[in-house]
Amino acid sequence: MKENYPSKLLENAVEAIRTLPGVGKNSALRLAMHILKQPAENIHHLTSAINSLRDEVRYCRECMMIADGDICSVCSDPKRDHRTICVVENVRDVISIEKTGQYNGVYHVLGGVISPIDGIGPSDISIMELVNRVGRIVSQPDDEETLSSSVQSVPEVIFALRGDVEGETTSFYIYRQIANFGIRVSSLARGLGFGDNLEYADELTLGRSIVNRQIFRP
Amino acid sequence: MKENYPSKLLENAVEAIRTLPGVGKNSALRLAMHILKQPAENIHHLTSAINSLRDEVRYCRECMMIADGDICSVCSDPKRDHRTICVVENVRDVISIEKTGQYNGVYHVLGGVISPIDGIGPSDISIMELVNRVGRIVSQPDDEETLSSSVQSVPEVIFALRGDVEGETTSFYIYRQIANFGIRVSSLARGLGFGDNLEYADELTLGRSIVNRQIFRP
Repeated sequence: MKENYPSKLLENAVEAIRTLPGVGKNSALRLAMHILKQPAENIHHLTSAINSLRDEVRYCRECMMIADGDICSVCSDPKRDHRTICVVENVRDVISIEKTGQYNGVYHVLGGVISPIDGIGPSDISIMELVNRVGRIVSQPDDEETLSSSVQSVPEVIFALRGDVEGETTSFYIYRQIANFGIRVSSLARGLGFGDNLEYADELTLGRSIVNRQIFRP
Repeated sequence: MKENYPSKLLENAVEAIRTLPGVGKNSALRLAMHILKQPAENIHHLTSAINSLRDEVRYCRECMMIADGDICSVCSDPKRDHRTICVVENVRDVISIEKTGQYNGVYHVLGGVISPIDGIGPSDISIMELVNRVGRIVSQPDDEETLSSSVQSVPEVIFALRGDVEGETTSFYIYRQIANFGIRVSSLARGLGFGDNLEYADELTLGRSIVNRQIFRP
């Protein structure tokens, strides 16, 4: 009975499941026991969904988001505003913003933020692709999507990156690359959350909330 | 963008991962993102270990434990005492007891406990197999394993089931089936854990600790 497991099959499965983030030895064993109790077809469905995700995943050639084809569902949607680009770190951020239902533009997924400590420089994330993309939008103002709208909107890049040093650095780095295009550049509002109590807010957030206070419209 | 997921592949994987116990929507998405970042061979190793566990698992014909073959590693070990059977609910209990290094007998995995509320009766768990097994041990006292030992030990059944009503009921039900065999029947000691503070012990446990107090051997 090697390593206390009664079966090599069980041991292999537990060791493999343990490699997942946030899954310890005991959770892995519990998951393995759960797997043993499920109908085989359910487990085959699970493993083939995982394999398909890993093997067949593609990334949108426009915004680098996960896609089922050459181009993602957002970039191929004619109803979205293709001249407003929201810059995010990863796909989970896209999903979070989509959930709000408040955004009708398109995205650009950087795949990370500039972080010298982690050895991630500007060329390791898709900044060049973003700059080229903005360049294309600016130089072709009368492309297919915008011909239909009578008023030509000003292109906009919205930074929706983390509020920490790496996020701010990345926003600033990109800003310098696109400032000359004469487009609008904005970043997410930061301040107290809805329902937040002033007493428990951190100083930085509360300070920013005061500096960036907004006109009261009752 | 159905259900906020940018890709059907991603959605399928998240939905499948969510079926695992203790994994919510957000954890499933986090796991899916992790899977996307791993080398494909790691993911294939994971999924094939899971499939192998589910498809190739076998149960020991003696003790019903998970095994790689016809008989498990404990039951096939000639160094273990095959006349002492520890009755447990499931394989995780076997792993826990093996970890202590304090037990040299064999096991019997019931696969559950009697629980009328959950519709689990005596015939739904492997009680009959246990009774037959004890019968075989009693009727063949001079079998292969015991021939070598000069002193013939008394067969023993140890109940290592839960301390709740279902566990006690199951122990008692089995006891009535095997009482006539004239073997030793015992159950795990219950009491305060090592390092436990009396102040925080529940009354039932503390009460049993007093009733079942042991001779002090300094």
